[in-house]
Amino acid sequence: MKTVAIFGVGLIGGSFALAIRKAGFQGKILGISSDDTIRAALERGVIDEGRPAREAAGEADLLYLAQPISKIVESLEELNAWVKPEALITDAGSTKQAIVDRAKQVISRAQFLGGHPMAGRERRGVEAAEADLFQGRPYVLTPGAAEELETPAAREFLGWIPRIGSVPLILGPEEHDRTVAFTSHLPQLVSSALAATLDGRPEPKTGVYGPALVDSTRLALSSFDIWGDIFLTNRRHILVALEHYITKLEEFREALGGGAMRRHFDAAARLAGEVRDST
Amino acid sequence: MKTVAIFGVGLIGGSFALAIRKAGFQGKILGISSDDTIRAALERGVIDEGRPAREAAGEADLLYLAQPISKIVESLEELNAWVKPEALITDAGSTKQAIVDRAKQVISRAQFLGGHPMAGRERRGVEAAEADLFQGRPYVLTPGAAEELETPAAREFLGWIPRIGSVPLILGPEEHDRTVAFTSHLPQLVSSALAATLDGRPEPKTGVYGPALVDSTRLALSSFDIWGDIFLTNRRHILVALEHYITKLEEFREALGGGAMRRHFDAAARLAGEVRDST
Repeated sequence: MKTVAIFGVGLIGGSFALAIRKAGFQGKILGISSDDTIRAALERGVIDEGRPAREAAGEADLLYLAQPISKIVESLEELNAWVKPEALITDAGSTKQAIVDRAKQVISRAQFLGGHPMAGRERRGVEAAEADLFQGRPYVLTPGAAEELETPAAREFLGWIPRIGSVPLILGPEEHDRTVAFTSHLPQLVSSALAATLDGRPEPKTGVYGPALVDSTRLALSSFDIWGDIFLTNRRHILVALEHYITKLEEFREALGGGAMRRHFDAAARLAGEVRDST
Repeated sequence: MKTVAIFGVGLIGGSFALAIRKAGFQGKILGISSDDTIRAALERGVIDEGRPAREAAGEADLLYLAQPISKIVESLEELNAWVKPEALITDAGSTKQAIVDRAKQVISRAQFLGGHPMAGRERRGVEAAEADLFQGRPYVLTPGAAEELETPAAREFLGWIPRIGSVPLILGPEEHDRTVAFTSHLPQLVSSALAATLDGRPEPKTGVYGPALVDSTRLALSSFDIWGDIFLTNRRHILVALEHYITKLEEFREALGGGAMRRHFDAAARLAGEVRDST
């Protein structure tokens, strides 16, 4: 692949550009974003050139869609008209079913392969992009069938995943969405709901809190511009996760102040240890 | 004050010893703990000498109780029999009403002043103690009446609080407990319940998660040996906080996937920003 086009040069798109460059990519990296973002991306050396979407799509061997989910869904049809037949279109959207379904309907002139790098920071935008963002993180791919990973364009793209330090994981789009409802979307809601519970209340205004509150509300800084689409496209699975969580809180409420609570704490500590061991 | 006795040389007790030493305390620091802990504390230079409780209580100008809450409540009466009349007994327990009430009943031969440094780490024990633990953190004091802060022993103790980098805050024990139910105990339950919800489920085992899950379950590593007492002695206030949180989650559930969710996210981000601005 000689030319990579990053659609949406924000935290993820910008980091992917920096990451492949650092990993030795010698070709051209085009950016498709607002004028301000292109200017910042050029200044930081994240991309080589800014381009209108149509032009970039016609030139690129890899189209990397790192926009909000609704924007990706919206622009797939348009891109299909412009893209080179041997190109690969992939995306970095946080939910996969809606995007993969749409791609199946409208991408006919090139290959589409859904993806989701499990990396992030609370800071957004190309200013927060970094070459090491994907280091040690899983990179989920959601092909419709295993053969989709064997095309020349897919093989070439897949080759870059370990080179940027990521671990490729293959999942169906439905399985991906159900999984991240629990492992990513639920933690977000848990933190946002904690912060929203405290907002306007007198207790935090006393200043009487420790680092626990600061850490627990870090995710609550995340932008709704990104999360709105995630909730919209993964509502069904998130509702299940939320239901499990509320039920668990009710168990905690019943057990509070008694010895039975130890069992809940032990379960919690076990899981907390497990997610640390494997990272 | 010439001699400080640290009852419970763990994270908080050990850090207090290191902090006053770093801030220039020239006197003797005694430790009252298990043999293993005393050995480790001596090795790290956290205390000068280990002592049985009775001996240390008879010698100390400041008795710093940094044990679990139930242990503090239990040993107050005993200490009253041994203590020097001009000494100050203070504690670092995470709830105050139960301790202050007990002290009012049984401490007659010296002064008691309840305290709660709002500092912590997920690691426990004297091994995790550090001189800078209290730096920039609030140090709550819960006197029964304002005059209690004006005695020579109290003034001397209070003088060390800014010297170890802490900000003194005066609250009634009830107000303290109600406040930390929201700002400290609720965040703990939120994290533990998230981790307990995921424990044994298939989703985390896929490895498909990002740093958000790891960060969100950090508090879930906390020991029940400490938290059991907190839940027991602050159950009433924590139940109120938990109720508010569950109600908020139910509002989130209703709003999920719709535009009304933006309002919740904005409230959450506002609070998350506020608790950062002031630290």
